[in-house]
Amino acid sequence: MASSITDVPGIRVGQVQKTGAGWLTGVTVVLPPPGTVGAVDVRGGGPATHETDALDPTTLVPTVDAVVLAGGSAFGLIAAHGAQRWLEEQGRGFRTANAVVPIVPAAAIYDLGRGGDIAARPDEQMGYDAAASAGAMQDFGAVQRGNVGAGTGAALGFQQYKGGVGTASLRMSGANDAVVVGALAVVNAAGMPFQGAASGAGGLHTGAARPGRPPEGEGAAGLSRAAGGEGSPLNTTLCVVATNAVLDPAQAKRTASAAHAGLARALSPSHTLMDGDVVFALATGQQQLVQEGPMDARAELHVLAAEAVTAAIRDAVVSAERVEGTDVVLEKYPYPD
Amino acid sequence: MASSITDVPGIRVGQVQKTGAGWLTGVTVVLPPPGTVGAVDVRGGGPATHETDALDPTTLVPTVDAVVLAGGSAFGLIAAHGAQRWLEEQGRGFRTANAVVPIVPAAAIYDLGRGGDIAARPDEQMGYDAAASAGAMQDFGAVQRGNVGAGTGAALGFQQYKGGVGTASLRMSGANDAVVVGALAVVNAAGMPFQGAASGAGGLHTGAARPGRPPEGEGAAGLSRAAGGEGSPLNTTLCVVATNAVLDPAQAKRTASAAHAGLARALSPSHTLMDGDVVFALATGQQQLVQEGPMDARAELHVLAAEAVTAAIRDAVVSAERVEGTDVVLEKYPYPD
Repeated sequence: MASSITDVPGIRVGQVQKTGAGWLTGVTVVLPPPGTVGAVDVRGGGPATHETDALDPTTLVPTVDAVVLAGGSAFGLIAAHGAQRWLEEQGRGFRTANAVVPIVPAAAIYDLGRGGDIAARPDEQMGYDAAASAGAMQDFGAVQRGNVGAGTGAALGFQQYKGGVGTASLRMSGANDAVVVGALAVVNAAGMPFQGAASGAGGLHTGAARPGRPPEGEGAAGLSRAAGGEGSPLNTTLCVVATNAVLDPAQAKRTASAAHAGLARALSPSHTLMDGDVVFALATGQQQLVQEGPMDARAELHVLAAEAVTAAIRDAVVSAERVEGTDVVLEKYPYPD
Repeated sequence: MASSITDVPGIRVGQVQKTGAGWLTGVTVVLPPPGTVGAVDVRGGGPATHETDALDPTTLVPTVDAVVLAGGSAFGLIAAHGAQRWLEEQGRGFRTANAVVPIVPAAAIYDLGRGGDIAARPDEQMGYDAAASAGAMQDFGAVQRGNVGAGTGAALGFQQYKGGVGTASLRMSGANDAVVVGALAVVNAAGMPFQGAASGAGGLHTGAARPGRPPEGEGAAGLSRAAGGEGSPLNTTLCVVATNAVLDPAQAKRTASAAHAGLARALSPSHTLMDGDVVFALATGQQQLVQEGPMDARAELHVLAAEAVTAAIRDAVVSAERVEGTDVVLEKYPYPD
């Protein structure tokens, strides 16, 4: 069975999507166990985000109740409120004097109109349903990949290829072999799979000499189509990294930052003005990191976080299937064998 | 007529509120003219925010279509989607390849349960109605103050006194005398009005020797009630600073940062773990700053931005009226004459 972010004990994933009749979008919710520490590093130039300031390490609330990833650009962020409603029904959230406030950061990808209807965007109910689906998860190996959840309308490579959802996990070694690092990625990149580097974990193939060179050599044309202020498609890779290690909010933030390297190694270009690239980090706090050997254990965790992101992005691209919509055809990305 | 943020040409304000039957909350929308540059500086330790990452000066989209301030803590941020819906109907927003995406950053104050019903929070429709109200604004001197909009359920001084909405404006001098700086504040502070400093513009009274000493000397008791992790009330002062000066996004961000000084001079304590203090900056870009004299004209603008915030906060406190709710009595703050 393929590895996934749910290999981190207690992490659940719920996904909903709508397709057909103008629709091609969805919502993915990552639901951690209560008390999970959260952080975020927003590095793209076109972010659509919600409640990210609360995740700053200097703030009062260290925990995150769910991370919502959605289609629908800034409109789709409303899905966070549906997940929040579900969490409130469960009594989950930050306890204030007289209420429980679920902390639900969110980020969205730009998939407007890919199904044919500009107005067909995730709504509050889809966020609720995705959270409820995560809460009901029984088979932790069964995270769906490809054209699902927030990846349903995702594209890749200047909107030539189909993007989607991918996930992977890795395990630390030695004294820390109980520490698992998982990642989930929603790949809606302006860029192409980066073919100039080999990932230690995900096993991205090598071969092409130029970073980001698409198989048909259409990268330059695609870039010029995508560039420019007005009319730019806004593309985004959203990642969630989760671990059962004990991390405080600042350490979680550093993990999110380090994990962006995995995004850079998986896609090129990345982190441009047209990408809203975001990495959330979740630490469930079940395993204390043990220091042994010359490398700081936290840095080892950072290495794995980046590798898990690279692997999750490759998984997303490999799992995504061709879509023919009303106005758009998104081909399956032709990874060389 | 009292000065207000709408003295900046093109800036409109719309406010809605619900009171009675468990309700004591509302929404305030600041609606700038199309093309207005926006920025934000989040400095409090308990922020509830939406779409603030898009306002980073390095990102693709320099403009803001509306700023939404709401009650209801993180739940109330859904009001941003109502304002977004209204803006979309007007065809206003950032133009992408195939859609218009209104950029609507938002921030919320914690007023949960002040009307008696924890579930009585701003919804999407209240955001729509506040934006529509702003769009319909005819009398630009008629910004309501006190117990209105997002200030309807606001409290002050460890929940002893009534907070609210205030606004003020100032004008630069000399060659820049066409440049106006306005501010609007929603004051829901843990702190008390700061009585140790005199504002050049707002004219905060002086007299008390100790910063933040409340009139009844209950500050220390109030602080101990408010402190602590679980059960903390989250208090927040939300400010919008607007100017008709030409500022790029980085200069707008610096203006927001400088304006936080005005918040510090108006309330004590400020910017604590329990405050979600936020300043948004809007620059409509109608007036080029002219350099004359020894002080950088941008720094002069920063001074006025801070003074306008101080004046708006004082206006909020002076305008707020006593409220007796089901479980809460919030007294009018007794400024000495």
